[in-house]
Amino acid sequence: MRMRLAIVGGGVIGLTVAWRAADAGHHVTVHDPDPGRGSSWVAGGMLAPVTEGRPGEEAAQDLGSLSLERWPDFATELSAAAGRPAGLRTQGTLVVGLDPGDRSELDHLVQWLTARGRQVATLHADALRDAEPGLAPGIRRGLSVPGDLAVDNRALLGALQAAGERAGVVHVAAPVADPAALTALDADQIVLAAGARVADVLPGLPVRPVKGEIVRLHHRPGALPPPTHTVRALAHGRHVYLVPRDDGLVVGATQWETGHETTVTVGGVRDLLDDATAVLPGLAEFEFAEVIAGSRPMTPDGLPLIGRVDARTVLATGHGRNGILLAPITADAVLAELAGEPLPALAAAAPGRFA
Amino acid sequence: MRMRLAIVGGGVIGLTVAWRAADAGHHVTVHDPDPGRGSSWVAGGMLAPVTEGRPGEEAAQDLGSLSLERWPDFATELSAAAGRPAGLRTQGTLVVGLDPGDRSELDHLVQWLTARGRQVATLHADALRDAEPGLAPGIRRGLSVPGDLAVDNRALLGALQAAGERAGVVHVAAPVADPAALTALDADQIVLAAGARVADVLPGLPVRPVKGEIVRLHHRPGALPPPTHTVRALAHGRHVYLVPRDDGLVVGATQWETGHETTVTVGGVRDLLDDATAVLPGLAEFEFAEVIAGSRPMTPDGLPLIGRVDARTVLATGHGRNGILLAPITADAVLAELAGEPLPALAAAAPGRFA
Repeated sequence: MRMRLAIVGGGVIGLTVAWRAADAGHHVTVHDPDPGRGSSWVAGGMLAPVTEGRPGEEAAQDLGSLSLERWPDFATELSAAAGRPAGLRTQGTLVVGLDPGDRSELDHLVQWLTARGRQVATLHADALRDAEPGLAPGIRRGLSVPGDLAVDNRALLGALQAAGERAGVVHVAAPVADPAALTALDADQIVLAAGARVADVLPGLPVRPVKGEIVRLHHRPGALPPPTHTVRALAHGRHVYLVPRDDGLVVGATQWETGHETTVTVGGVRDLLDDATAVLPGLAEFEFAEVIAGSRPMTPDGLPLIGRVDARTVLATGHGRNGILLAPITADAVLAELAGEPLPALAAAAPGRFA
Repeated sequence: MRMRLAIVGGGVIGLTVAWRAADAGHHVTVHDPDPGRGSSWVAGGMLAPVTEGRPGEEAAQDLGSLSLERWPDFATELSAAAGRPAGLRTQGTLVVGLDPGDRSELDHLVQWLTARGRQVATLHADALRDAEPGLAPGIRRGLSVPGDLAVDNRALLGALQAAGERAGVVHVAAPVADPAALTALDADQIVLAAGARVADVLPGLPVRPVKGEIVRLHHRPGALPPPTHTVRALAHGRHVYLVPRDDGLVVGATQWETGHETTVTVGGVRDLLDDATAVLPGLAEFEFAEVIAGSRPMTPDGLPLIGRVDARTVLATGHGRNGILLAPITADAVLAELAGEPLPALAAAAPGRFA
């Protein structure tokens, strides 16, 4: 049955649902004053349920792994539909620690991941250097996690917009920023994909903003080549990740519980640059190309809110650090819900679980 | 005698000469595609001949001190002529060192400055903290140099443009970027104030670009107040300066001999932020508002090139780190030269001295 579907929010979740729904034959409008921007534009683009995982967040890891399984086909279909690359990189992830405390923490992570059946290998000296020659000389041990991938978030957003347009998605620039605007939407079904702002539209939803800053570095002539793998590091207890792009890399990410503000701080940029150049010293010669902050939509348990909340409204929000990773499975779940066939795998993300 | 005066370059030197010359009754054109920008827009704005000085550069210090004497009246006249503030700050400068080696270097600087009759006082613990409460707790000793001032470079450029327009200065956007364009200028006299690009126009001039990066920080609600003094520091052998602005401060400056390129580097930004927050830890909470690089026009001996080079051409360039400091005396010298009364004090800056 062809329905009129209004999607509130044009980030990676909203655009993925929009493309899939339009492709399935629905009449789709996306309501966002600035689609393809917001926190999806800021993101690092890691598809990394293994290395993002931590004890106590098993359900989030399992959901991430389910979505990652869908990613290669998703990227292939999207590229074909958009007529441009989806930006997927398949080189895998390395994880390193700078000091003995960091390495001890990684050892515990390996034990937990191995017990959960995840593919993790420890690399020493030469093997580590062969994988990523630019690592600081003092880093003599690391983890290889070949299954954790990455995607160029801006290429992805561009491809999603192109594929959506080809499938007939209509963009509406007027914001849907409060409950009255939501009620006024002329649609058979509504998908709420408003990220960290979703509680403005549906008050009481347990989604809060967690600011993250990222720095984008460009390669310069004469500088060492950028890394080919995603490199995650613990730097004296602080997490940093370095995600390759065609023209350099993205370095992230700070986490600040400072409400709806996306000011870039001196301390945040300082820490990112200190940690990144401690891991890959050659980055000091790269261009400091951009710094930007966004708001992750976080829930109390680190799992998103995906599912129906009333006869006309389906939630697809609260993806925290993992909106891009979870976009394929979220879109599958929303389309299944709209077709009246909810996905059992998504039970852990049911919107009513905090009630 | 009213003459038609063409000024090549609309940085602080060109704009200052333009305003003064138009005010003196000349018909003035300023040739620059983007006046008020370039390295003057990037500058920290220190008026600091005492703390910029170093042994072997006595003539540059003396020239700087002569120009600094002119600054208070210059700022007053400019503000009145422009109808807006010139941006002068009169709070003076503190100099600190982070480690014993840094402090030893500062002790030598004090000896040299004292021998040269410059006003320098050593402040200890409480007196230093009273002067600048945000200094890192480990900094227990510093120099107070009340005579070294600062100016908001962008307020200054805005005031110079406004005063120039009121005095009748005409702006020409077409670039004068090579000898042919210089020859083609329809003017009685030409002032070459093209900064680091001057050798493109007059090949063979001993002026080379030295890149500098600066970071601009804005105060945020809840953060400690910005410093009131200019704070210069030696941080493990590396120089950093922190120059107050109404909305925060400017942190500079790196020095790179990398030719005509103004790419901002990761290592440059990292060092500036590391050093700035080591001196004033509260800056970590400030907004990282802007980073930008410019090219200082450096000469082999650190003194500018001011004076006549042929019957129609007067040089006013090569000011290195001190273009803003030296703007008043440079304009006085150029106007005296145009009137046929060269300033004896400018002999050290004579363009022919390298021939």
